[in-house]
Amino acid sequence: MAKDAPAQPPRTITSADVARLAGVSRATVSFVLNDTQAHRVSESTRARVLTAANQLGYVPHAAARSLRAGRSNLVLMPSSVSAIGRLVSDWVDDLHSELDRRGYTVVLHAGRFPDAVTAARAWAELRPAAVFALSEDSFTPEAADLLQRAGIRGLLAFAARPLAGAHTIAFDHADIGAAAAEHLVARGRRRIAVLMPQERGLSAFSEPRLAGARRIAASSTATVTAVEVSYTQDSVAQLAERWPELGLDAVFAYNDEYAALLMHAFQNAGISVPEDVAVVGADDLVLASLQRPPLTSIRLNLPGPGVIAETLQQLIEHGTAEPVDPVDVTLIHRASS
Amino acid sequence: MAKDAPAQPPRTITSADVARLAGVSRATVSFVLNDTQAHRVSESTRARVLTAANQLGYVPHAAARSLRAGRSNLVLMPSSVSAIGRLVSDWVDDLHSELDRRGYTVVLHAGRFPDAVTAARAWAELRPAAVFALSEDSFTPEAADLLQRAGIRGLLAFAARPLAGAHTIAFDHADIGAAAAEHLVARGRRRIAVLMPQERGLSAFSEPRLAGARRIAASSTATVTAVEVSYTQDSVAQLAERWPELGLDAVFAYNDEYAALLMHAFQNAGISVPEDVAVVGADDLVLASLQRPPLTSIRLNLPGPGVIAETLQQLIEHGTAEPVDPVDVTLIHRASS
Repeated sequence: MAKDAPAQPPRTITSADVARLAGVSRATVSFVLNDTQAHRVSESTRARVLTAANQLGYVPHAAARSLRAGRSNLVLMPSSVSAIGRLVSDWVDDLHSELDRRGYTVVLHAGRFPDAVTAARAWAELRPAAVFALSEDSFTPEAADLLQRAGIRGLLAFAARPLAGAHTIAFDHADIGAAAAEHLVARGRRRIAVLMPQERGLSAFSEPRLAGARRIAASSTATVTAVEVSYTQDSVAQLAERWPELGLDAVFAYNDEYAALLMHAFQNAGISVPEDVAVVGADDLVLASLQRPPLTSIRLNLPGPGVIAETLQQLIEHGTAEPVDPVDVTLIHRASS
Repeated sequence: MAKDAPAQPPRTITSADVARLAGVSRATVSFVLNDTQAHRVSESTRARVLTAANQLGYVPHAAARSLRAGRSNLVLMPSSVSAIGRLVSDWVDDLHSELDRRGYTVVLHAGRFPDAVTAARAWAELRPAAVFALSEDSFTPEAADLLQRAGIRGLLAFAARPLAGAHTIAFDHADIGAAAAEHLVARGRRRIAVLMPQERGLSAFSEPRLAGARRIAASSTATVTAVEVSYTQDSVAQLAERWPELGLDAVFAYNDEYAALLMHAFQNAGISVPEDVAVVGADDLVLASLQRPPLTSIRLNLPGPGVIAETLQQLIEHGTAEPVDPVDVTLIHRASS
């Protein structure tokens, strides 16, 4: 081989290689490395196996270990990165740190599936100890049943109503739309637009927000109009252009990022906030108070990441957990409405 | 049991249950469900196993299957959600869709580890088909070796220099800092601040950006000063307050989000952009052109998600892949500098 030919990648090392080097059976290697039935193995054999594994750089297979030991340290969160958004991304990072500290590994599973059972089957194949879902769509009764039959004890979700077979933290996104609409009606607005982002993964949140706004409108003289937008300057510029003909005097803009984008388009189109149109965002991000005028927003009071981590650990270890306080929302009034 | 007592969760179903119901051995169940050595099993036995598995709602174990079949469909990305940021989050989502379409599942692994080898061991335990890292820290030679010995063929990373044992896409974050500094020097600025975010996971990117700016300063009469900030209004307000005593006339603000936050604090403190201080961001997000004045930014020309997916698939299937064009950067000049 020429001196500067690319190095061959090292050969894959399996437990059979460890067994051969240690002069024991594969079953013995498995007993030692997966910490199961270790009593069946003498100290000297155990030491021989560990030395061989170390020498070969063999890493045991987490899933094989969990299969044999009956436990896994994986917590799976079904979500795309962008659906998490800026508010929740710090919260999710903190949750990951909390679980890390407790010996669990969090993976975000971004796969998209035609239905909840197909999704549950894909998650179950990874044999996590827990699945934590940010929206209630993940756990239909059939999906929860499938996950439990695969031995996954920690099923936790934010959901508007208690879910069969999963631990539920009450969080109704309708409350967000309702808080926005209630405030706009109290400010004298009557024709309220609700932005519906077309970005994927968001309809699980935008649909109940719209429903919440509609509920408030139904008990007043206000109307609610759903308006589709994408998170691009073109899309909001087009909306600002046809705004006058829509005859609307307020908008609940899904969240602060869409609100900031829309307010900029309004400004370019000569539409005044709040004179011509009142704007309300959600999440109460840092950028809400940076807007001109500063943006009214809805703050979500999520449970602390430590509470979520503790609940997941209780579910994994005992199959049950203490109830978690519902997520409530607070409207932060600023000059945009 | 009282009628409204909580339902017991279903018992965990294992391949032993399937074997018992089908009247075959566990090995036979494994052959059928993991699609290995299926020729050893008659059609009628095969049908019996599938019926039993279906009846019990048994999901095969992906890792056990990959162990036996010698392949896995998992692609692991080591990263925290917030380190991905808004620019890359859409790109990562698109990559996930591309890989989904090709039959792979992407998981984001958010665990934090004391060193690269410990991290690699944790990833290897999941036996992914590939690991795709956004920064070069993940693949030290020892870590790459460990992953390869675990049979993981698809090691791909963005890195400033070719990495031993991994496929590298050239991306030097120093280019971003250099482009910003070059522009600021050309605009007559001489005392350049470079923001260093204190949020976790970002130093892998901020350190080389700073080094790139320093390199440009070294070949001119300009100086570069590293300035630590956090992504909070308090932190940037404090910076704006002591800004006059720092005697600086320009800032490269790490990215557009930090730039927007800082420009707002400058405005509150009566510091004019670009008269008193020129500001440059990075990522060229939608919000860059929404700023007042509009924000100069550095656009990153990342390879298309289809290219990354194709490269990962080639690495997984053949152990090698075509080279990918380096990531280059373009400065978009606007009124903030």
